[in-house]
Amino acid sequence: MLHDNLSVNESGNLAFCGKDTVELAKKYGTPLMLLDEEGIRFQIRRYLRAMKSSFGEGSFPLYAGKALCIKEIYRIAKEEGIGVDLVSSGEIYTALSVGFPLSKAFFHGNNKTDADIKYAMDNGIGYFVTDNFEELNAVNEYAKEKGVIQKIVLRLTPGIDPHTHAAISTGKVDSKFGVAIETGQADKIVEYAFGLSNVALVGFHCHIGSQIFDIKPFTDAADIMIKYIGKVKETLGRDIEILNLGGGFGVRYVESDPVIDYEDNIFRISEHIKDYCGKHDIKMPIIVMEPGRSIVAANGMTLYTAGSVKEITGYKNYLAIDGGMGDNPRYALYKSSYTVLNAGKMNLPADYKCVIAGRCCESGDLIQEDVVIPKPQRNDTIAVLVTGAYNYSMASNYNRLPRPAIVAIDGQEEKIVVKRETFEDLVRNDV
Amino acid sequence: MLHDNLSVNESGNLAFCGKDTVELAKKYGTPLMLLDEEGIRFQIRRYLRAMKSSFGEGSFPLYAGKALCIKEIYRIAKEEGIGVDLVSSGEIYTALSVGFPLSKAFFHGNNKTDADIKYAMDNGIGYFVTDNFEELNAVNEYAKEKGVIQKIVLRLTPGIDPHTHAAISTGKVDSKFGVAIETGQADKIVEYAFGLSNVALVGFHCHIGSQIFDIKPFTDAADIMIKYIGKVKETLGRDIEILNLGGGFGVRYVESDPVIDYEDNIFRISEHIKDYCGKHDIKMPIIVMEPGRSIVAANGMTLYTAGSVKEITGYKNYLAIDGGMGDNPRYALYKSSYTVLNAGKMNLPADYKCVIAGRCCESGDLIQEDVVIPKPQRNDTIAVLVTGAYNYSMASNYNRLPRPAIVAIDGQEEKIVVKRETFEDLVRNDV
Repeated sequence: MLHDNLSVNESGNLAFCGKDTVELAKKYGTPLMLLDEEGIRFQIRRYLRAMKSSFGEGSFPLYAGKALCIKEIYRIAKEEGIGVDLVSSGEIYTALSVGFPLSKAFFHGNNKTDADIKYAMDNGIGYFVTDNFEELNAVNEYAKEKGVIQKIVLRLTPGIDPHTHAAISTGKVDSKFGVAIETGQADKIVEYAFGLSNVALVGFHCHIGSQIFDIKPFTDAADIMIKYIGKVKETLGRDIEILNLGGGFGVRYVESDPVIDYEDNIFRISEHIKDYCGKHDIKMPIIVMEPGRSIVAANGMTLYTAGSVKEITGYKNYLAIDGGMGDNPRYALYKSSYTVLNAGKMNLPADYKCVIAGRCCESGDLIQEDVVIPKPQRNDTIAVLVTGAYNYSMASNYNRLPRPAIVAIDGQEEKIVVKRETFEDLVRNDV
Repeated sequence: MLHDNLSVNESGNLAFCGKDTVELAKKYGTPLMLLDEEGIRFQIRRYLRAMKSSFGEGSFPLYAGKALCIKEIYRIAKEEGIGVDLVSSGEIYTALSVGFPLSKAFFHGNNKTDADIKYAMDNGIGYFVTDNFEELNAVNEYAKEKGVIQKIVLRLTPGIDPHTHAAISTGKVDSKFGVAIETGQADKIVEYAFGLSNVALVGFHCHIGSQIFDIKPFTDAADIMIKYIGKVKETLGRDIEILNLGGGFGVRYVESDPVIDYEDNIFRISEHIKDYCGKHDIKMPIIVMEPGRSIVAANGMTLYTAGSVKEITGYKNYLAIDGGMGDNPRYALYKSSYTVLNAGKMNLPADYKCVIAGRCCESGDLIQEDVVIPKPQRNDTIAVLVTGAYNYSMASNYNRLPRPAIVAIDGQEEKIVVKRETFEDLVRNDV
């Protein structure tokens, strides 16, 4: 099947990590998110091992928390020894709440407030990833006030367009992120950062986008970044120790997506970088990467209960589920592809073409179009695969729908890692 | 200015209901949503009055709660005597929590669960708005169990495309909502509904879309619906008392949007309907409408604090604010238009063209492009106008950003009607 954690059991039901999904839906209610905790650990270890073996012992991955930011993920990250990429005080708070060591965290974002800067520094953040003068100054000022030297990494834009969806393509010169090398503006901010008294510029960062299946965008970006590291050495005489290549490895959402060999990709990128550094006589930097989606996406799944089945003669069929853009806005936002299964009818012929519609009062609230599944009926369990990334983290209470529970499966053990929101939660802040 | 609740005060600052927005931002923090409570009451009264005077005393509006669903809105709705349109158990819970009489509520949605149906009926919901057999059966069964007759309204699709954004156009035959008249499927469900023992089919509903500035889509839809009411009378000998024309009146987001005279629109629609009924000898039904956006949108505003100002030489400028798609996903979803002002520099020349970027780690997190404002700098207060509808109600915690507070201004009084989310709130359901 699409991923190793999926199977069909003797009842003809979809199983996730060996557990019957129809039974899980009954037991915990729907919409329900499932997490394969062993799968997440496996994927983290794969990155840790591959990066150290390919790039050298100093190299390390950061889990990009924005993909799925819950306490349990930071418990796992802490236990597995991976660093993290955080983007807000709320993410920092979540990581701190389970004792994640913030010295291993990179604080990202195009706009940190003064309050964010203080909160992060007061809690010993490892690195600020900065891309503008305002923030550089604010960090420097507060570091001065505290009498510390704060490590920073500058986010630069290499000018690469990896041909992914516009909303998740971030390496282009005109992106809201980063400082462009091409326009000469990177030179200015680098020199400015080196001139500040209380920040230590230790690295460069770039991030070219998401859902990239090819290594070429990464090696192209690495070439530009390493060449620029060489230029900084040459013109300013300063060493840049860390090159953070961001995230972006693709994930298989549907059968037509390629299978990625993450180890081999990392190995080939490392060979390319070593070769490039050798040829241009540039000291190989410590390579950092920021996988988020590729750690959690395929280790997550959402279960829904089927509601109405609407057949519009001569047009199309709709299957309505008891969730939608509230728990998964990615189709509404990007027309993202998903694989949908009728979890209790896995051995029946998939011959019913339909649109999977959410329950929100909005026409755009669809989960997927042109799905072909065994004919559904009210109360069937419907599984949407590969929802571990950017589903729960983007979830809203639109139409005042409570956000789902998340049940993690760790070997034979099932545990609720996020409780289902209650109606009381929905009005908690209403006066 | 764009709306009557906006002005510029003697300090050159933007005022909302006469209150200095720069001071409000300082006092309550940002992102901050403001509500003009008098404006909301004015708009509700306008609909109540215009509908009764144009369509007759039996006619009434329903506030469409999904536009902004908070306790305070239902308090206002209860006090003003408007009915409501609700779409989930969570919305029902919110309305009930302030004692809103559910007999005045229409329960919408393309997919109500068995639990929703029970919850609504146990709390005395006025009307179910239904568009599928599964739900009809489920409502009928539970009504039978309770020994009651449940009033229902059938949602039909008149096949009108009002040329609004695809995601908010809902009257077309192939929509996930409604039962198509054109395909003959409406005939079947109408006959079926009349045959059920414990539901009383009292009305038809249609909703053609949002942001409609012209009355023609409404009168076209009304013609089709009334003609259909006539057909039902003729073929089945049954009367349909209520015609619910849904919502959809446009709201002025930017200067180029037309100013709508709601009273005049309602009057002209009523004249058209009376004329049509007279010509075709059909008894004029009770007309219901469902304004949501046009009640709250222009009575809301969001204040942000400016962060980085990024100028990409030869490309564009970005102004980053301390909110974004988390509190306002409408540009990311639909490229919605908004008016943005530099609230503390209202008397300075607006000559700085920029993109208003949110703070989320996502390229698509923009609030508006091609904005021209007085040159901003870090810590300026930035106002985004007309955010009362589908902003807070669609808000998420993406990037673990807490959702804003909402301060309502009622005459001279300021009151917090929704408290700002805390970091503790963010992890409340995390185990």
